[in-house]
Amino acid sequence: MSPVTRMYGVVAMVTALIASNAIAADDKEIIDYREHIMKTLNEQSAALGMMLSMAVPDDNAIAHMEAIALAAKMAPKAFEPKVQGGQSKPEVWTNWDDFSKRMDDFAKKTDEMVRVAKTKGAATAMGNIIEYLPCKSCHDVYRDESKK
Amino acid sequence: MSPVTRMYGVVAMVTALIASNAIAADDKEIIDYREHIMKTLNEQSAALGMMLSMAVPDDNAIAHMEAIALAAKMAPKAFEPKVQGGQSKPEVWTNWDDFSKRMDDFAKKTDEMVRVAKTKGAATAMGNIIEYLPCKSCHDVYRDESKK
Repeated sequence: MSPVTRMYGVVAMVTALIASNAIAADDKEIIDYREHIMKTLNEQSAALGMMLSMAVPDDNAIAHMEAIALAAKMAPKAFEPKVQGGQSKPEVWTNWDDFSKRMDDFAKKTDEMVRVAKTKGAATAMGNIIEYLPCKSCHDVYRDESKK
Repeated sequence: MSPVTRMYGVVAMVTALIASNAIAADDKEIIDYREHIMKTLNEQSAALGMMLSMAVPDDNAIAHMEAIALAAKMAPKAFEPKVQGGQSKPEVWTNWDDFSKRMDDFAKKTDEMVRVAKTKGAATAMGNIIEYLPCKSCHDVYRDESKK
């Protein structure tokens, strides 16, 4: 092997290493980002649930609903990159049409929840909360809770 | 001790136990509730931070700012009950006037952030992000990160 050929080999190897490191870092960031959104949904739904069970006063109920509706609209964009990992099952991307339709429905339902709460009162919206927040039906198919 | 006196003693003891359990449960719920809000702020600020460092695209930037502004407005109500615990230092309640003023300022600043982002663009608001999110200056005084 000539020195030039060897140099080309080294350059190719270093370039490949840099590229693979860069991709690995990006993937972690993509997963971190969608987890920030899903954890927000988790925290805000838990807060709303505490009001439903009358554990805390419901002064902030509509604000929690608005925060959930905002996060629901953030979520689809966060799942667009086809990066497996975290608690997302591979089915998120193999069944993308179904997954993204459910996400869009979720965003519409949470908007409806806010509209009902603002026009008819938080208690009326609370009465239909399972319909507005179909978290479990989607998690049953697309989330692997055994993962970190 | 007569059987009647003993019975009164037992009833008093049971009543006291039930009461202390009830108070303990309420306190935990109050702490859980404010933690749901502070964790939301943490997740949403982290997501916005990822856009600031260009780790992820900034499509959702304004929505993150709106979620932060909503959570900032939820927070004061969640700290009103004088229940120590979690990462809150006792100073939250011994310096309540200062703490609640900071919380109100935080809510106003995050509203201003959203207004600037919507009228002048997310990038303009991002340029002033440290001014809009004075999390650290408040945490330095009122948060004990060594606690769970």
